[in-house]
Amino acid sequence: MNLTKENIEKIIGGDKRTISRAISYIENNQDNKHLVLKSLYSYTGNAYKIGITGPPGAGKSTITDCLVTLLVKDGYKVGVIAVDPTSPFTGGALLGDRVRMTDSSLLENVFIRSMATRGSLGGLCRSVNDVCSILDASGKDFIIMETVGVGQSELDVAETADTTVVALVPESGDSIQAMKAGLMEIADIFVINKSDRQGADEIITGLKNMLHLRMPGEHNREISVIKTIASRNTGTAELLDEILSHKKYLETSGFLLKKRRSQIENEIIEIVEIGLRNNFWNEKNREILKQNIDKILNKETDPYTLSEKLFGL
Amino acid sequence: MNLTKENIEKIIGGDKRTISRAISYIENNQDNKHLVLKSLYSYTGNAYKIGITGPPGAGKSTITDCLVTLLVKDGYKVGVIAVDPTSPFTGGALLGDRVRMTDSSLLENVFIRSMATRGSLGGLCRSVNDVCSILDASGKDFIIMETVGVGQSELDVAETADTTVVALVPESGDSIQAMKAGLMEIADIFVINKSDRQGADEIITGLKNMLHLRMPGEHNREISVIKTIASRNTGTAELLDEILSHKKYLETSGFLLKKRRSQIENEIIEIVEIGLRNNFWNEKNREILKQNIDKILNKETDPYTLSEKLFGL
Repeated sequence: MNLTKENIEKIIGGDKRTISRAISYIENNQDNKHLVLKSLYSYTGNAYKIGITGPPGAGKSTITDCLVTLLVKDGYKVGVIAVDPTSPFTGGALLGDRVRMTDSSLLENVFIRSMATRGSLGGLCRSVNDVCSILDASGKDFIIMETVGVGQSELDVAETADTTVVALVPESGDSIQAMKAGLMEIADIFVINKSDRQGADEIITGLKNMLHLRMPGEHNREISVIKTIASRNTGTAELLDEILSHKKYLETSGFLLKKRRSQIENEIIEIVEIGLRNNFWNEKNREILKQNIDKILNKETDPYTLSEKLFGL
Repeated sequence: MNLTKENIEKIIGGDKRTISRAISYIENNQDNKHLVLKSLYSYTGNAYKIGITGPPGAGKSTITDCLVTLLVKDGYKVGVIAVDPTSPFTGGALLGDRVRMTDSSLLENVFIRSMATRGSLGGLCRSVNDVCSILDASGKDFIIMETVGVGQSELDVAETADTTVVALVPESGDSIQAMKAGLMEIADIFVINKSDRQGADEIITGLKNMLHLRMPGEHNREISVIKTIASRNTGTAELLDEILSHKKYLETSGFLLKKRRSQIENEIIEIVEIGLRNNFWNEKNREILKQNIDKILNKETDPYTLSEKLFGL
């Protein structure tokens, strides 16, 4: 993609086709994508990033849809990045496909992108960041990043979000015990979705008890627990209020700036390490690797000795 | 840890205290751990690795406990690595603590290690592999790796297992839709645990329908779906039979050798890339990084330009 001045202007003007093409370009041209991202970088930094994570089946998509609708009604432009770490079927722009977008202002002010993650070992965060940068440069006021699951990738994505919402359902009771520590570290807000189901109050009590026991520290703002039934649009306005209140807290306390610094640091580390990998695995080193696998299998050498050889030690 | 000939002999003889100390050493001495792992490497390659993964609350620990008991009854020595990506509380050896180990043969023939993963960004697989190598060298016939969640780290761990069991519960119906593709790629065997609960038959039917649609390919062995109630030890013997049958299939078809080659390749790639990172982030480069974060924040430069500078381009 030739990022002409015209194309840059189209992107920062919010032209959807050019945004789509730019995203596809950076996804398919990992070696040259920095050219695109460099020219857009000075336009980034304005979007506020909301992460929505939680176990599969918690209704994250429905919650996202509700938030998008509310934000657009309030006059904001919104980007959505839906990360599904397990589906190879996502990958294209799904605008209007996933969300019930009948209102024309929704169609106009929302950009949705689904991303698959398999095969991009360790690169998920990087890719999400790249797409985030383009949406940010395109004038989005809010970017919602929706991720499935409870693994390391979610924790990584959480680090790139300004506010992280953890969505659970009443049935997640067992899960909480298992993952309470991780959740409590990343959550700024908890949502109990499908809260008309049995067990909602128990899970809220359980969560509040755990939150009560939380170590005091930098994040000395109380973590709220919000009940929603997103499929009926119940409680989602309260959720948005809470997100906006967390945003304000971060802005006035100076924590947002601190977060942004740490996000930049992580971004550079990732870019550098992807570069290191790509440089190292040239044809010669790939060949050495290939030729030694059977020797290791036969215990003639071992992975550590081979690594030293590859490093030229 | 001075890995004297005596210590090596103790490890390959299965001495628990020395195994524990070796594991703690490699966990705490990332820079020198290759010395320990090198001296043990020639004793590895005999253990058969079983991965058990699935969403939190699926009863993976209980299933593991049942399998351990059955394997020990059959005269095998067993190692267990419990990976909890979200808990900072795990980290020590929990022998006899977690499992209801009253039988002395269990105490004698089982070694259990819990591992936390937070903070070891991208290094989970590496750490699990290291512990696996030590347990393998110590003469374990089977090593069970238990992982929580459905994220990238689980997919990584699955690649290091010989047989991967995906555990679900009847309530996982929603989850399956969300993660079917990823699950189907990694599962060799599905377990529907807590199968006395409502919805068990529906989830089995749903799974079988999906499995039926699976692409034909290398893995042309039928994926079985097993019902268990692990808390009552129901169905777990059938599960073990199925695991052993998958083992036999891999061995006779030559796929096990292929898997082992690919496991070695992944292991080397990981070792090399950890080394690349550690070499690159010396004091000088860390300082350059630190000094430029505010410049990037102020849009005087961008992460890509800085990365080029760090690479000396």
